[in-house]
Amino acid sequence: MIRFNNDYNHGAHPEILEALGAINGNSYGGYGEDEWCEKAAELIREKIHCADAAVHFFPGATQANFIVTAAALSPVQSVIAADTGHINCHEAASIENTGHKILELPNTDGKISAEQIAACAAAYYEGGEPEYLTEPKMVYLSFPTEQGTLYSLQELTKIHEVCRKYDMYLFVDGARLGYGLGSEKNDVSLEDLAALTDVFYFGGTKCGALFGEAVVLTADSLKKRFKAYMKQNGAVLAKGWLLGLQFHCLLGHDLYFTATRRADELAMKLRKAFAAQGIPFWVESFTNQQFVILTDAQKETLEKRYIFEPMGKSADGGNIARFCTSWATTEEEVQTLIDDLKAL
Amino acid sequence: MIRFNNDYNHGAHPEILEALGAINGNSYGGYGEDEWCEKAAELIREKIHCADAAVHFFPGATQANFIVTAAALSPVQSVIAADTGHINCHEAASIENTGHKILELPNTDGKISAEQIAACAAAYYEGGEPEYLTEPKMVYLSFPTEQGTLYSLQELTKIHEVCRKYDMYLFVDGARLGYGLGSEKNDVSLEDLAALTDVFYFGGTKCGALFGEAVVLTADSLKKRFKAYMKQNGAVLAKGWLLGLQFHCLLGHDLYFTATRRADELAMKLRKAFAAQGIPFWVESFTNQQFVILTDAQKETLEKRYIFEPMGKSADGGNIARFCTSWATTEEEVQTLIDDLKAL
Amino acid sequence: MIRFNNDYNHGAHPEILEALGAINGNSYGGYGEDEWCEKAAELIREKIHCADAAVHFFPGATQANFIVTAAALSPVQSVIAADTGHINCHEAASIENTGHKILELPNTDGKISAEQIAACAAAYYEGGEPEYLTEPKMVYLSFPTEQGTLYSLQELTKIHEVCRKYDMYLFVDGARLGYGLGSEKNDVSLEDLAALTDVFYFGGTKCGALFGEAVVLTADSLKKRFKAYMKQNGAVLAKGWLLGLQFHCLLGHDLYFTATRRADELAMKLRKAFAAQGIPFWVESFTNQQFVILTDAQKETLEKRYIFEPMGKSADGGNIARFCTSWATTEEEVQTLIDDLKAL
Amino acid sequence: MIRFNNDYNHGAHPEILEALGAINGNSYGGYGEDEWCEKAAELIREKIHCADAAVHFFPGATQANFIVTAAALSPVQSVIAADTGHINCHEAASIENTGHKILELPNTDGKISAEQIAACAAAYYEGGEPEYLTEPKMVYLSFPTEQGTLYSLQELTKIHEVCRKYDMYLFVDGARLGYGLGSEKNDVSLEDLAALTDVFYFGGTKCGALFGEAVVLTADSLKKRFKAYMKQNGAVLAKGWLLGLQFHCLLGHDLYFTATRRADELAMKLRKAFAAQGIPFWVESFTNQQFVILTDAQKETLEKRYIFEPMGKSADGGNIARFCTSWATTEEEVQTLIDDLKAL
Repeated sequence: MIRFNNDYNHGAHPEILEALGAINGNSYGGYGEDEWCEKAAELIREKIHCADAAVHFFPGATQANFIVTAAALSPVQSVIAADTGHINCHEAASIENTGHKILELPNTDGKISAEQIAACAAAYYEGGEPEYLTEPKMVYLSFPTEQGTLYSLQELTKIHEVCRKYDMYLFVDGARLGYGLGSEKNDVSLEDLAALTDVFYFGGTKCGALFGEAVVLTADSLKKRFKAYMKQNGAVLAKGWLLGLQFHCLLGHDLYFTATRRADELAMKLRKAFAAQGIPFWVESFTNQQFVILTDAQKETLEKRYIFEPMGKSADGGNIARFCTSWATTEEEVQTLIDDLKAL
Repeated sequence: MIRFNNDYNHGAHPEILEALGAINGNSYGGYGEDEWCEKAAELIREKIHCADAAVHFFPGATQANFIVTAAALSPVQSVIAADTGHINCHEAASIENTGHKILELPNTDGKISAEQIAACAAAYYEGGEPEYLTEPKMVYLSFPTEQGTLYSLQELTKIHEVCRKYDMYLFVDGARLGYGLGSEKNDVSLEDLAALTDVFYFGGTKCGALFGEAVVLTADSLKKRFKAYMKQNGAVLAKGWLLGLQFHCLLGHDLYFTATRRADELAMKLRKAFAAQGIPFWVESFTNQQFVILTDAQKETLEKRYIFEPMGKSADGGNIARFCTSWATTEEEVQTLIDDLKAL
Repeated sequence: MIRFNNDYNHGAHPEILEALGAINGNSYGGYGEDEWCEKAAELIREKIHCADAAVHFFPGATQANFIVTAAALSPVQSVIAADTGHINCHEAASIENTGHKILELPNTDGKISAEQIAACAAAYYEGGEPEYLTEPKMVYLSFPTEQGTLYSLQELTKIHEVCRKYDMYLFVDGARLGYGLGSEKNDVSLEDLAALTDVFYFGGTKCGALFGEAVVLTADSLKKRFKAYMKQNGAVLAKGWLLGLQFHCLLGHDLYFTATRRADELAMKLRKAFAAQGIPFWVESFTNQQFVILTDAQKETLEKRYIFEPMGKSADGGNIARFCTSWATTEEEVQTLIDDLKAL
Repeated sequence: MIRFNNDYNHGAHPEILEALGAINGNSYGGYGEDEWCEKAAELIREKIHCADAAVHFFPGATQANFIVTAAALSPVQSVIAADTGHINCHEAASIENTGHKILELPNTDGKISAEQIAACAAAYYEGGEPEYLTEPKMVYLSFPTEQGTLYSLQELTKIHEVCRKYDMYLFVDGARLGYGLGSEKNDVSLEDLAALTDVFYFGGTKCGALFGEAVVLTADSLKKRFKAYMKQNGAVLAKGWLLGLQFHCLLGHDLYFTATRRADELAMKLRKAFAAQGIPFWVESFTNQQFVILTDAQKETLEKRYIFEPMGKSADGGNIARFCTSWATTEEEVQTLIDDLKAL
């Protein structure tokens, strides 16, 4: 069986395993106080042209999401997000568990607009800031979204402006950041992203690492005691260098970007093959996640050889399915699937 | 410089890196639903002779501590612990952050007694269960303790009995479990531990793994929806097999126990060398952590070649220092330190 | 100015002030352990024909809402409510502040249906109870709703059945219970309400008392240590008899019901007057809250003599306004308004 | 039976009931937006000579304690308090329930010293502000303490200085403030108290009101959105004027101070009578709470006619008992007890 169900079904890029092996005999300081974390953080600061950004390495993305939120918001503040946002429907209410309300906005292909955000913020800020409402203080976006779509530079800039107007943090979940930046349709650079947000992260788990996410804080008000929030929630890895080393390895020679761009290209090949076969898309995605609507017969045939993610039923009763490529997907696997699609 | 400051300053036992390399090309199901987690869990169930224990793999020990507590206690219940317990003074109030009070008891060499626990529980349970007090519902112990000491089978049995009397959970933090079980003074078997507790864990991070802890739940009432608590708090690793594989590797051929026993033996050599030199112990430990009191001159000399952990001042102004061995400590490193101690 | 803006703009029914004066020289036990709380609880148990119901007196309704929720749900459980539910939009995220997600359902005139609730519950319970979702464990309804509407006995019975099917608690916010029970359209008796729910409350603040709500727990699993939750959240009044006495006074001679029924009747007079004048209703309510859509001119005229609650704009740009009657509203006040409506 | 067990066993000072009756026919704006709250707040601002203090009226003291704490602290900050502090042992872990650790210090007669506080703060602030510790950000004191004792002006000034040094809030729980200010031994004026603290409150429940506490915030950083914290935790009374009116009544003609001073004087009479009889004191108190150690025979005799509060056993097996006077205690009741003490 070939797994296309997600982008985290393989270990790590071989260079990472090599690097881990190479330093296994060395000893390091604990809890992220080591040379690899420092080097990786420095690489990131250079790449985003922000010398005073704070960089922290997390074991996982759910941790990054709820700990950034916990550190950013007071108990009477809330976060704006798409109803399809990962924090709203895939993380067992981790945000609410830290005491914060998510102000959900209806998504369009996984995205929310500056206009929606502005209206939500205005209800509070221009409605007299009533004590019976929470203060929207952060906007959470995923880039790319859970549906594989991307915010354009113009869209992101407008959202940034709304955030500045109301003094709200802009937080971008970059669990799949590499696949977003590597998309043929993307016009947002890494520098743009860093400049337009207050905090974002480089996803490692889904983009070539064994595990780990690199959280980048550019807003000064978020930096203070941030690591205490990580510690309190169990996100400071004892052997922190394992994370620093992986990001150093991924970002040192741009492996992070080349590997994910390659996965995007493979996804575009699949996309063409689905289209050629007349298989409709549930959503138009130009990143590594492709969502199609299969007939029962198509689904049954493909399930014999492939693992893909069922996503429920479409309006007309079709089977929504997610096919992902990743840094680990091979040309052969993609070609095999393309051949099988032709034969459907 | 040779690091004796802690037992988590090296990567992983070489067998683990090999195992990770060997399966890197394979793909697996996510979030702990994979064959390695199942095999490792089965190994653990066999070793503790408890066929219906639930086993869950965590990235880190702070996560294990606060998530077990969150899953076990209602908002009006509290946990009894030593004032020196890891949850009380090293984890940034992670327990209180989940809403629970720690009822601290004064420790003796890191331990608390069945009598102390009984008195604390009785104040509530035999004092009319007043609504202005929280209900002590769990007892947290570390085995070995933060000071390297051990509960005897008799002590643990008596604590178990107090817990049964008041229907409280007994939770053992086993971040250094291997070093406890491997001590020459230990009389608690793994089976005893499983039988006397409701939940405990095998620490991996400090005992040979890259990272990870294996939490074992024997009390049925703790098992339901436990993984949802993990998910909510970001402790379900996407590539869960990385944890399962490590524990399979460590427990499959008893590497876990042989490697930690060896570290204990090295610690006993150090212990004799300190004693021979007339260096007093801050606490009598027969596990891999040794706590001594150094004069200023001794401290200064040793700091030139070794990294060890400063633990504050003793009552008479000496420098308390922790020296740890680990599965990664070599005979040569220990011998070098012994030679240098002789020359003090 | 005559206040029709809400039903809590006057002190207490005169009988209550008299009763408070009559016992002011007496001394009582604290924290609800007194004869008046016991008598009032007994009255309630008789009225609902439930000898083992637990009754607790709260200072306020927000406290009742979030404390019942905190006592009923574990951190991985959530509550289903209408998007217009008081807990979702008028209480500053008090539910999320206790760590729980509200699963909001779109309302129809303030109500949600058994079908909607069943679909929401099924997504979890019949979808494999996935660990990344919270478990819907309680349904929150308001009776009457925030828009003055009522659940019929049939509707409530069907919701009750969904709750039983999935083992969810049914919680009815009765902040305006008297106005609901007293409505000419109501077919739910107090006994029905008690039999169909697991917990509900008699609102006092809006129904004749100075302040206070009487929470009635019929589900055994909610009773244990409930008062500890109240204590922890500051809802155990030191002089608890002040609450017990008020409910004894209100319920002893059915003052609670006669006073609210009278207010409903006054509201129906207003309703007819609005209709006669051709003023459209925003929602059809047969309880003490009337929601109408005023033109700018009508609004301006009425504002000279009356205080009423602005509720935003209707779809076609009209001014939604709430007019409430209460136990304290006089016939004269209503007649004055009716006369002024005729003159519009 | 005559109740000396506490100072909250009677309703309200008769002037308060009269005032409530006098305005019962009036209607007011809700949620504390009314003339009585404004007038009472203004009275308080005048009395403490602080024109920009924020004043908020709470139904109860536990609410005041945990909501002030929730508003003041971030999740990684903690509060320093005496182990006997009300928040630490009488409020069902309400502080921990909001996510905060209490750093308990051992009390001396209910008090903690500036030196103890400085040492506790220094462990964090001068120990490198380690991420595994919470930041002590507030000091909680009771005035008078739970044991009836008082901080002198010198003691309070020194504590204030420690708080300034480490930028910690000083919070004084004034549930019995009147009895403290009215004590013959007190040298702290109301102006001193306001000047030396960042937030304190006038207790109403125990000092003449039916219920209610007036929280005074002088630190600007605490004022923002404070009422949203109150709302979120159910402490904004719908009929807020009931609280404002009571404090206006108590403070308008200094009834608050004259009534509590009188109670202190009655307590001093009792104190002399206990001493004359050779009955030892458990703690030396010069406020309205007197703690004595009774023999079994004395206890048995007095229990026939009086209700007093049992406080456990003294070191030598005596029965610690609390006798309280209040604004409601009569000369006759005190004289009766004095006569009975003589006859023991």
